[in-house]
Amino acid sequence: MDTPSPLPEQHDHVLFPHGLTLECGRHLANLAVAFRAYGTLNAARSNAILICHALTGDQYVADRHPLTGRPGWWQVLVGPGRVIDTDRYFVLCANVLGGCMGSTGPASRRDDGTPWGTAFPPVTIRDMVRAQKLLIDHLGIDRLFAVIGGSMGGMQVLEWASTFPAAVFAAVPIATASYHSAQNIAFHEVGRQAIFADPHWHGGNYAAHDAIPARGLAVARMAAHITYVSEQALTRKFGRRLRAAGAQEPDAVSLFGDMFEVESYLQHQGSTFVRRFDANSYLTITRAMDYFDLAAEHDDDLAGAFAGTRTRFCVISFSSDWLFPTSQARAIARALNRAAANVSFVEITTDKGHDAFLLDEPDFHGALRGFLRGCEEHLERERA
Amino acid sequence: MDTPSPLPEQHDHVLFPHGLTLECGRHLANLAVAFRAYGTLNAARSNAILICHALTGDQYVADRHPLTGRPGWWQVLVGPGRVIDTDRYFVLCANVLGGCMGSTGPASRRDDGTPWGTAFPPVTIRDMVRAQKLLIDHLGIDRLFAVIGGSMGGMQVLEWASTFPAAVFAAVPIATASYHSAQNIAFHEVGRQAIFADPHWHGGNYAAHDAIPARGLAVARMAAHITYVSEQALTRKFGRRLRAAGAQEPDAVSLFGDMFEVESYLQHQGSTFVRRFDANSYLTITRAMDYFDLAAEHDDDLAGAFAGTRTRFCVISFSSDWLFPTSQARAIARALNRAAANVSFVEITTDKGHDAFLLDEPDFHGALRGFLRGCEEHLERERA
Repeated sequence: MDTPSPLPEQHDHVLFPHGLTLECGRHLANLAVAFRAYGTLNAARSNAILICHALTGDQYVADRHPLTGRPGWWQVLVGPGRVIDTDRYFVLCANVLGGCMGSTGPASRRDDGTPWGTAFPPVTIRDMVRAQKLLIDHLGIDRLFAVIGGSMGGMQVLEWASTFPAAVFAAVPIATASYHSAQNIAFHEVGRQAIFADPHWHGGNYAAHDAIPARGLAVARMAAHITYVSEQALTRKFGRRLRAAGAQEPDAVSLFGDMFEVESYLQHQGSTFVRRFDANSYLTITRAMDYFDLAAEHDDDLAGAFAGTRTRFCVISFSSDWLFPTSQARAIARALNRAAANVSFVEITTDKGHDAFLLDEPDFHGALRGFLRGCEEHLERERA
Repeated sequence: MDTPSPLPEQHDHVLFPHGLTLECGRHLANLAVAFRAYGTLNAARSNAILICHALTGDQYVADRHPLTGRPGWWQVLVGPGRVIDTDRYFVLCANVLGGCMGSTGPASRRDDGTPWGTAFPPVTIRDMVRAQKLLIDHLGIDRLFAVIGGSMGGMQVLEWASTFPAAVFAAVPIATASYHSAQNIAFHEVGRQAIFADPHWHGGNYAAHDAIPARGLAVARMAAHITYVSEQALTRKFGRRLRAAGAQEPDAVSLFGDMFEVESYLQHQGSTFVRRFDANSYLTITRAMDYFDLAAEHDDDLAGAFAGTRTRFCVISFSSDWLFPTSQARAIARALNRAAANVSFVEITTDKGHDAFLLDEPDFHGALRGFLRGCEEHLERERA
């Protein structure tokens, strides 16, 4: 079986030899931050947009993915002439700390040459953001024009605006929340238990056994994938249609001789995922999401996280997203209002569920385009 | 490790030597139907209530469970003086065909003495109902006063009323649907894949290896359990509270040294479940639910399933049930209206989710009590 990801040096990255001291108190030396950049940084260094990726995303926002060969995950939104216009903006995306696409994570090698595995220290959303800040500083960017991200990317956007307010002119948290709910923690826990149950996990030491906990990771991905789509989207896409027995994957086990299309789709989602994602990264990153609770860091008052902020916010949710429902986005907008922040809040009506933030949703794209152009005008006025 | 369930002969049961020909065309000889009975059948044999159990339920409705030692799963509703009053009614519940509490299922032994395992033929909800009909006939009951059940039990109620309309005076389908949705099929498929991924499943032949696919079955149960409760109920019960590291189960793997209470609760749900339930039964019964589509048997017109019915229906749903939402109950009520059936429809307002049908919900119990007493009056008038 292939290794789950190429070595870090196969991805563009910056190495920070002084490393980073994590929130848990432990120090990561020789921190690698892998990233992609699109467009050109202007002379004033004022046109940089940082995109924060989601749990299973990566830095390949707008070009071909080196492992899957598929287009960038946000190519619908990012590129020349698109909403996040690479002819106007210098667009950056870094693989998160703890990830498996070149940034330091559980699959990275320690000084003794062995991979961290489960010995990798726990990281938080703030740790991810602090690693990105090292990259931004390295590139000589004092202030990002905008930080934009959906799902876990949105958590990073909130953390960016809270931890480095002077470095964020505009912030767009999309399909996200200021904390991970009990139900979302529960879904993550099912996925983790599925990985732990796989005999090829070997207590996290699967690399030493030249193994991958592929079935456990696939089950985790399948469970998560259900939460990314709405009931309506699943029904429209598959309904109760059966797939003929002959068309099945060779290893599919079917008690009836044929299976529902939705089953075969989920199995496909699971089996393709394990080829590009490291199981210990999945464990580390889901943990970081579960521990995210921005208000808890501010006496349980979310407004406190944004006290005195001058950042312009656009909070976006999708009506059929049941993983990060609109009520959680509204709570963010209300906290920003209490902090007297400049905030607009948009709920996009769609039946596509959480995944809508990745899809061609004209109302979403229109709202984001309008917000960014408005922010450009404000920036020009500020500089005039 | 203990065997997952006692032998069939340890549960009260009736053996039908002529067996049953299943919808798939195969014949099951020597069919065992295990059941519990509470109360006394009156001389007119007109006071029998059949309760149909859910996916992981069994016939131990109102007395101590022989494996777990816990009270009956519907003891809150069934017993002397309760809504389903065993002083008035003769209350029956049979373990479903394909189950593992004494009725013939995948853990039952074939003529050669080996368990069926995955060679057990696929069964449908209608097959389950037809096995129950053999029991009812055996007991000399021509017509059941009522058939009542929640979730998969509600599917059986609908199938009873459709297949044996003359044998059902009143029918109460609760928290159910006339077909299994794509999302529900998807959740089942995650559970099945978790079982298949467990090396102790041995292709379904785990009994021969003296093994149980306990971890896979536990993951399946955990995933399912999330769907049984509402987001609000999970949040109220656990929120984001942490459980101290010292209090963990010995085999719990925690990357942070402590875990959320909701995780430990789910792990407990999973680990206790595997002691009482057979993995191949879980596969067989989830398949039966997935294949259920009552309208499909009647030219895609659900009303056709109830043409000419004289049964009195009470369709009950719960407002926060996202597994079998009210919209699906309303679709059943509308079809019954189109069939000119006598139907009432009640949506109970609760934040407890799908599991509300098992809990002490006063409005639900009041509605059921009122419906049953009204049906008694109608029955008396009919007989006068």
